[in-house]
Amino acid sequence: MNNPLSRRHFLKAAGAGSVFIPSSVKGYTGKEMRRLVIEGGIEADISKWELDTPALIVDLDALEGNLANMQNTLARNGIASRPHAKTHKCPAIARMQVEAGSVGICTAKVGEAEVMLEHGIERVLMTTTNVTPVKIERAMSLSRWYPGFVQATDTPANARDLSEAAEAAGISVDVVIDVDSGGHRTGITPGRPALELSQLVDTLPGLRFVGMLCYDGGSQHVQGFEARRAQTLERLRPAAETFSMLQRSGLNTEIFSGGGTGTYNVDHETPGFTDVQCGSYVFMDAQYLGIGGENDPTVYSDFAPSLTILTTVINSQYEGRATTDAGAKACTINRPWPIVKGESGMTYTSGSDEFGTLRYEEGASRSYRVGDKVELIVSHCDPVVNLYDQLYAVRNDRVQAVWSVAARGRST
Amino acid sequence: MNNPLSRRHFLKAAGAGSVFIPSSVKGYTGKEMRRLVIEGGIEADISKWELDTPALIVDLDALEGNLANMQNTLARNGIASRPHAKTHKCPAIARMQVEAGSVGICTAKVGEAEVMLEHGIERVLMTTTNVTPVKIERAMSLSRWYPGFVQATDTPANARDLSEAAEAAGISVDVVIDVDSGGHRTGITPGRPALELSQLVDTLPGLRFVGMLCYDGGSQHVQGFEARRAQTLERLRPAAETFSMLQRSGLNTEIFSGGGTGTYNVDHETPGFTDVQCGSYVFMDAQYLGIGGENDPTVYSDFAPSLTILTTVINSQYEGRATTDAGAKACTINRPWPIVKGESGMTYTSGSDEFGTLRYEEGASRSYRVGDKVELIVSHCDPVVNLYDQLYAVRNDRVQAVWSVAARGRST
Repeated sequence: MNNPLSRRHFLKAAGAGSVFIPSSVKGYTGKEMRRLVIEGGIEADISKWELDTPALIVDLDALEGNLANMQNTLARNGIASRPHAKTHKCPAIARMQVEAGSVGICTAKVGEAEVMLEHGIERVLMTTTNVTPVKIERAMSLSRWYPGFVQATDTPANARDLSEAAEAAGISVDVVIDVDSGGHRTGITPGRPALELSQLVDTLPGLRFVGMLCYDGGSQHVQGFEARRAQTLERLRPAAETFSMLQRSGLNTEIFSGGGTGTYNVDHETPGFTDVQCGSYVFMDAQYLGIGGENDPTVYSDFAPSLTILTTVINSQYEGRATTDAGAKACTINRPWPIVKGESGMTYTSGSDEFGTLRYEEGASRSYRVGDKVELIVSHCDPVVNLYDQLYAVRNDRVQAVWSVAARGRST
Repeated sequence: MNNPLSRRHFLKAAGAGSVFIPSSVKGYTGKEMRRLVIEGGIEADISKWELDTPALIVDLDALEGNLANMQNTLARNGIASRPHAKTHKCPAIARMQVEAGSVGICTAKVGEAEVMLEHGIERVLMTTTNVTPVKIERAMSLSRWYPGFVQATDTPANARDLSEAAEAAGISVDVVIDVDSGGHRTGITPGRPALELSQLVDTLPGLRFVGMLCYDGGSQHVQGFEARRAQTLERLRPAAETFSMLQRSGLNTEIFSGGGTGTYNVDHETPGFTDVQCGSYVFMDAQYLGIGGENDPTVYSDFAPSLTILTTVINSQYEGRATTDAGAKACTINRPWPIVKGESGMTYTSGSDEFGTLRYEEGASRSYRVGDKVELIVSHCDPVVNLYDQLYAVRNDRVQAVWSVAARGRST
């Protein structure tokens, strides 16, 4: 289509080292981009700066680097990865994780497990217990058709429900027990209660006991590597002792899953751990960047921020500020607020539902005009991804693929 | 399907006066519910307590009461309603608003306008300025096919862009100017700048000037009716003076739109106001309930909370608390936290991505067991609705319809 505005110029939203100032821009809607991909791949050379906004973008170099770094570190430490797909909800990324060497993936919801299994991911560990008849029915259906589906349980009553449903369906289902790491959120108490539940699962006719999981969510964002390391090893000790009890009881202990992005290089020190349920490492976010790493006390730089939101300035007529098109419905209101990529001396808040607010401080690296694009490092990756139906995969700022966030909104 | 667990009982998540304890529950997934509706309506008598969770629910009696109350109050005050569809993103509700007497609806995004117009809503005022070539192209396409589409502008440069695009498309488009209410977020400065922009729009060949809008977002949640009334009347005075200038200049002043749920019974006092862009009144939420009303200083009871999230307890084995399946991805992390409907002495937090946490205080009205349903009044309705693809419309706790949240995620 002949666009009378195509000669209008966009200024770059300066990413460090990724300068792109097209002299002519068409602009592509999400629908157009999907069509371009479905009908024979993206033959056009489209820059991310030409995308309609707000747009969710993942940088492929950074993403691939994160996958490799996780895999290499865990391999060196003699432990596997079983990444949590609740972070990305994207079968394309799950496939990359499996190809990079992960032993499978995790999901939080049965709806996510359905999507991942239907998209060809063969080994899925659902880390939450299914407690209602409808959820158990859905889980049984997955176990019937996908032998690589493993589910969790955390009470004897639930284990009996699962076994009863499996027997009625004429199948045997793989089950791990979920053990509480001290947060009292989910999971059974470690020690004797966990052992007895494991033994019950092992004897119930419809179930096959395959191990345990213990996710120490409370330690992932502890500030400072040494404090984080000490806390998680302490908190996981009861789970490790439980796992040792299971081993001594002769139970099948092929899985002892837990850990995450904040403790990935510590988790192998917990005796018995088989794999790390790392999620955020693929994308990173402002929350994780702030916790500090082993080699850098201020910035957690083990993984690169690969996920950004592209937004457009829609008002710049008031002193010291600009308004963008990415508010809470595009960024969430998680803190710390999103970081303006490649800039200094400015803050971004997404507290308003529809609009973001940029404010300039003394010595801001630049100011923006209406129509300019701004690129944001996300505050907290999981809930941000859950707002978008698609993810633009870019390399050197050129769009390579449009990925479906196929499990978006699958909170049931 | 013969479900071996169907004899399991659900306890009610006591809504005040809405007790339902089925002795046998099948449980229905979202997919099943959509199929039941598409294939000939819901002939089965399905209770909301049988829905798979998390589920977003709207009570039809409360919703209809809110629509009627808004319409009656505004009619008494001699002012129209032009409800903001960014709140519900649901064509079915927009249709109810138009049928109740609204002069049209508002949208914040061109993507929402596309959905509403395509679903038969004839008069749509888009309250945000379209600044990029791709957004302007989309807006022109709407103006071409839907004569009831009105868009906003807030700079002379943008007005010229719109006119140029309209001329290139061979059409004339309806435009209002957006005037800043003092928040400096969007809109042009009232007074002379606004007058000159209006005159420019009026003379540009591709545009038809139809009035102005001024949304005083900063006043909607001011605590206490009198303080709220005084603030919004003060803040809207420059806009009212601007509107008077437009009238004296002989411009077309058919639209002077603004106001909202917090000021709906004050907005008619601003001279010239033609209609109220009320959004949240259809659903209400914990944020609005807390601001107090004209007759009740503590609770804003002018409208009834019609929107709730149904969630299920998945862990109840730890003292003083329970864990549910509705966390940040089902509730957002807006404050105040969701309110447990019909209960007292308990708090709910959705700070965790996947799980909600119920905590009991001294004298809690009850405690929950695994599998029990809990009903929550939402924290802030707009971003919550944006997480769900469908909305269950219920009356007397029985599901009457499954509505598509067709504009969910349409943030572009």
